[in-house]
Amino acid sequence: MNTQPYKGSRDFYPEDKRLQKWLFAKWAEVCEKFGYEQYDAPMLEETALYQLKGSDEILSEQTYTFIDRGDRSVTMRTEMTPSVSRMVAQKRQELAYPLRWYSIPELWRYERPQRGRLRQFWQLNVDIFGVQGQYAEHEIISVADAIMQSVGAKRSMYQIKLNSRLFIDFVLKDYLGLDEVESATIRRLVDKMAKIDPAAFAASIEASMSPTARDNGAPAKLLDLLQLKSLDDMPADVAGHPSIAELKQLMALLKTNGITNTVFDISLMRGFDYYTDIVFEVFDTNPDNNRSMFGGGRYDGLVGLFGVDPVPTVGFGMGDVTFVNFLEVHGLMPALESETELYMAFIGDMYSSVQPVLAELREEGVTVAVDTTGRKLDKQIKTAEKKGIEFVVFVGEQEIQTGQFRIKNLKSGEEQTLSLARLITVVKDRRKK
Amino acid sequence: MNTQPYKGSRDFYPEDKRLQKWLFAKWAEVCEKFGYEQYDAPMLEETALYQLKGSDEILSEQTYTFIDRGDRSVTMRTEMTPSVSRMVAQKRQELAYPLRWYSIPELWRYERPQRGRLRQFWQLNVDIFGVQGQYAEHEIISVADAIMQSVGAKRSMYQIKLNSRLFIDFVLKDYLGLDEVESATIRRLVDKMAKIDPAAFAASIEASMSPTARDNGAPAKLLDLLQLKSLDDMPADVAGHPSIAELKQLMALLKTNGITNTVFDISLMRGFDYYTDIVFEVFDTNPDNNRSMFGGGRYDGLVGLFGVDPVPTVGFGMGDVTFVNFLEVHGLMPALESETELYMAFIGDMYSSVQPVLAELREEGVTVAVDTTGRKLDKQIKTAEKKGIEFVVFVGEQEIQTGQFRIKNLKSGEEQTLSLARLITVVKDRRKK
Repeated sequence: MNTQPYKGSRDFYPEDKRLQKWLFAKWAEVCEKFGYEQYDAPMLEETALYQLKGSDEILSEQTYTFIDRGDRSVTMRTEMTPSVSRMVAQKRQELAYPLRWYSIPELWRYERPQRGRLRQFWQLNVDIFGVQGQYAEHEIISVADAIMQSVGAKRSMYQIKLNSRLFIDFVLKDYLGLDEVESATIRRLVDKMAKIDPAAFAASIEASMSPTARDNGAPAKLLDLLQLKSLDDMPADVAGHPSIAELKQLMALLKTNGITNTVFDISLMRGFDYYTDIVFEVFDTNPDNNRSMFGGGRYDGLVGLFGVDPVPTVGFGMGDVTFVNFLEVHGLMPALESETELYMAFIGDMYSSVQPVLAELREEGVTVAVDTTGRKLDKQIKTAEKKGIEFVVFVGEQEIQTGQFRIKNLKSGEEQTLSLARLITVVKDRRKK
Repeated sequence: MNTQPYKGSRDFYPEDKRLQKWLFAKWAEVCEKFGYEQYDAPMLEETALYQLKGSDEILSEQTYTFIDRGDRSVTMRTEMTPSVSRMVAQKRQELAYPLRWYSIPELWRYERPQRGRLRQFWQLNVDIFGVQGQYAEHEIISVADAIMQSVGAKRSMYQIKLNSRLFIDFVLKDYLGLDEVESATIRRLVDKMAKIDPAAFAASIEASMSPTARDNGAPAKLLDLLQLKSLDDMPADVAGHPSIAELKQLMALLKTNGITNTVFDISLMRGFDYYTDIVFEVFDTNPDNNRSMFGGGRYDGLVGLFGVDPVPTVGFGMGDVTFVNFLEVHGLMPALESETELYMAFIGDMYSSVQPVLAELREEGVTVAVDTTGRKLDKQIKTAEKKGIEFVVFVGEQEIQTGQFRIKNLKSGEEQTLSLARLITVVKDRRKK
């Protein structure tokens, strides 16, 4: 019988779970400081939810979709945005806006497992509902930045790329005169631009446009635009679009918060169709991991698809696997200790008579594991060491009678004989370090 | 488009999620005090894992089982025991015993949703691996009891029922002379005894035994045994079985810890086939919810099924839905407050100039949400009230210039004008209440 977990999923042994708990606690702490409340939605949703407006590629090729025993088509959630939109729509009238919600769902996608990508992963989702103006974008990007800061990242380690869907639509439709079909193809091409050879990319752009568009010089105009690195260098025909001013304002406002690592990136598309305005992505600047880590943007149209009044929304999703990769390449992984502070080794069979001592330790909040194996003392100590527990206390008849306990710090090697009250203080003092 | 969650599953709006977080934190806190470490296993397992040794009824009728895009049969986990046994088997040699592990997995079963039973639920799983003697049972039952105590339950509100699989097997095979097939039928019948009319039950017992067994008076002997309420009233033929002495010792040891609400219940079977020795269940004594809440026992054989040396194991699983039902009927539901402590209302457009104040509040750990809607002040206050946030602070030009902020406690109605430092102290002091 195979003991491995299902392909693309993970077993979390206590040392792995400890890292996940640390990460989720960081995420939650930052979100709550910004006034976000946690919610959750089911692991299974009816498949129709994902047909509403998602990425078709994901639905047709990358989902776990099946028919349940009651003949309903269900899908394991691949992202949280459709579910959270459904939940907001369900209580559209009752909820108090601005609504600030976060969640850390487990998600499943049927993909070929690779670095930074597994079939099973978790994703922090942070969304603000009910805010029209760009303060929503500012706050959401501030939350993303605060999460990076909370794990010790420096702003040189990551870059926040910004673009506007409205602006791109304007460029494709009005500036270049392309139709919907051409535009969709171009958007997909541009999304993959960084991974394609420049000459091949230019040829693909040319090939995806109509003769009329080519005659109008649209390919060259687009390629020129895609070279731009700054909002200040826009050609006059597009520089007046309101999105340009909005992006400039947003970047200026972020700067007042010390978020100086923003850049305009006209090639930033984001995969999902539901974005309607400003989009952003956080990139790892480390040469060993130079990739998009996560992103988000404004999607004002999704809640309204459920037949209720639309709700302006800005949000982002941040995956655990990619985030841990970032921590690794930048040397930011935390050193985490066992949740168990004290190991109790027995000299003789003390299990029954030590119960009042255990009760008092736990009453005081000390986390303590007892050795119930009856093995020799050195084996009991070895077990504590293997578990990474800092303190071991030795309990025999004499200790119970005198109320004085010998405690050893397995890291420093220091030994002391202490009353129970003193012992509790020594163990608790360790936490403050 | 339907906005309801998939049948038998739940949306967790922030007020629901808050209760779940509180519950999981209680569970985790108690487990960690006893030296248990958290682990996790994937939501999907290969179906073969559940064919190893489980309840056939669950596998064939109550699982979400399907074929993935790579032609593997996979099952959404219905219980954690097969997964944790797989994980222990995988690292059988490396792990340090006694191993104390807990987990709070989301589980799925295809059932007709009803009170206390949903298709999607969470279950605390607590297991100790590597301990032969009954100290393991004692500790595991102590953890279960400590969880009940941690939510304010009195021992009169629940009862811990105990039985022994070894003893039942001895009774059926040796005392009554039944074969495997008869025994399996009887076990299933006894498991449902409380729900069947006594005369019909007696007739079913009779019908499920062979003529030989009937001639030997086995039905009457069994019915007599099933009436017994105490270990001290056993007939001489069975009273000498070692399990009887073990159960007595265990109950005595639990009593020294104040766990006085244990009873022997010979009809206690537990559904799963993998139990090998002592089993227990915790029953709600409230007449409105008189039912088994959760249970567990010893299952020494499961890890060994993976082709490694067996590992003695005792554990239990406790579902969230049943547990919350218990809290409700006993009036033990907690009053939980919003994680957001402070709501910031604006007089004019202060978003940009208030950023340094927000940064300082968050630096100090205050959870604060800002109103970015530009609405009138009374609307902003109403939003804070609706969200259940205790404090609202009013910020306009004057406040930024003077550094003095008017703060209102929405519960008491009290208003104060304070420096930022004092304001932080006032908000933080609230937590200590």
